[in-house]
Amino acid sequence: MFDYQELKSKAPQALRQIIRGGQYKAHTAGLAKGYLQANLMILPQAHALDFMRFCQRNPKPCPLIAVSDTGNPFLETAGVDIDIRSDVPAYAIYRDGMLAGESHDIGSLWTDEMVTFALGCSFTFEHALLEVGIDVWHITNNTTVPMFKTSIETVPAGAFSGETVVSMRMIPEERVEEVYGICRQFPLAHGAPLHAGDPAAIGVRDLLRPDWGDMAPSLPGCVPVFWACGVTPQVAIKAARLPLSIAHKPGHMLVTDIPDGAEIPIMKP
Amino acid sequence: MFDYQELKSKAPQALRQIIRGGQYKAHTAGLAKGYLQANLMILPQAHALDFMRFCQRNPKPCPLIAVSDTGNPFLETAGVDIDIRSDVPAYAIYRDGMLAGESHDIGSLWTDEMVTFALGCSFTFEHALLEVGIDVWHITNNTTVPMFKTSIETVPAGAFSGETVVSMRMIPEERVEEVYGICRQFPLAHGAPLHAGDPAAIGVRDLLRPDWGDMAPSLPGCVPVFWACGVTPQVAIKAARLPLSIAHKPGHMLVTDIPDGAEIPIMKP
Repeated sequence: MFDYQELKSKAPQALRQIIRGGQYKAHTAGLAKGYLQANLMILPQAHALDFMRFCQRNPKPCPLIAVSDTGNPFLETAGVDIDIRSDVPAYAIYRDGMLAGESHDIGSLWTDEMVTFALGCSFTFEHALLEVGIDVWHITNNTTVPMFKTSIETVPAGAFSGETVVSMRMIPEERVEEVYGICRQFPLAHGAPLHAGDPAAIGVRDLLRPDWGDMAPSLPGCVPVFWACGVTPQVAIKAARLPLSIAHKPGHMLVTDIPDGAEIPIMKP
Repeated sequence: MFDYQELKSKAPQALRQIIRGGQYKAHTAGLAKGYLQANLMILPQAHALDFMRFCQRNPKPCPLIAVSDTGNPFLETAGVDIDIRSDVPAYAIYRDGMLAGESHDIGSLWTDEMVTFALGCSFTFEHALLEVGIDVWHITNNTTVPMFKTSIETVPAGAFSGETVVSMRMIPEERVEEVYGICRQFPLAHGAPLHAGDPAAIGVRDLLRPDWGDMAPSLPGCVPVFWACGVTPQVAIKAARLPLSIAHKPGHMLVTDIPDGAEIPIMKP
């Protein structure tokens, strides 16, 4: 087993090899700095066109960075030798749209009908915020970002619909506008926030009780700022009641070979 | 019939109504300023997932801004009451992947199996160049931009593959870098150029003989700059040999209700 600290200096491919070998099963925040990490959704081809439309219509929660060929477990445009069956530290398995278990290897669930979708992730803009000296509480405190279901409806596609999930970070009041400007530069990482201020305005009732991740406290002089979150598809597949679909476990992302600052998220295979 | 000059002040919806009524059938460059215009590809659902993957993998020539539901002729996320069967001034009809004719109304070809794709267009960044005082020759001279097939291979998806098509504009040598910076800000309008300088480096043999559009001359002190072009899918469908597919006639675009500067190209229906 590798320790989180030991992995900080690893390049993406080396890191994925360690994960593939079952030697690291925890969250990937702060690892492979400078490279895109991704949310994951794997589902049967019969639903893939509608899911892809769902992502296209909801680009802030679901910024598509890669889509596999049907039945091909290698995600060729996202990096070298990415085997999606084993290269993510932890998977969430959904049956009939409900969370049914976790795994560290989904080789036994993969079929010729599966299509993999990788969606950009908040780690990209969090780096950018840290670089201009904006503290991100859950990183400093080594917890998972708090995530909430909201009242903001997604634009439906086929059977996929439901509320947008957001992640929350406390931002000093006088820097909120600056944060919007920075994040708008990362359309593949959820872009500008969806909301700043009163949580109730977007249907979040209790800031101290997130639906996913860990609680983060209110901070003096700060306002809660909410970003569209890559866990949104996990709500949408609930609505669609797919017999089987596989996501990443929140916080446990796919590490790609695509540089953070790439204009487009495509490595020519 | 309406005259081009009369239409310059029309808002997108009014303009589409005029086109739908058959009262304007020419190019849309310079119309509906401030709104996204789009390249078009309509094809049967059986090929839609692969085509969508093709766009995702080739986001510079094929920046997706809208995808319809299967069989729905209204492109609901791109604007109010967009009937894709009649709201584009001229269509190019492909049979077995070859250009087979033109039309101003495709109502008789539409079926319940059709899916519409709208891809961002160069008009967006051309506006931005004009605004900083960079002359765009084909606009000043009221011609269609010259387009060329290149040796730059697209990333294939299913049956879709082939060379990237580029459009060319002459740019003053000392402003090329600035142009790259400006265009990079418009990922939904082909983004930064693919190449500047020697045409032969990307397989363009004769700058004075474009494969589509009109010839534009070399200009003293300028270098040819090449952008990925939304005509690329018309090469890809040739490779795929689809029995029937429908595109816009180059230059004759779909005018959407989406503001040019929108962070995301989605109008909530």
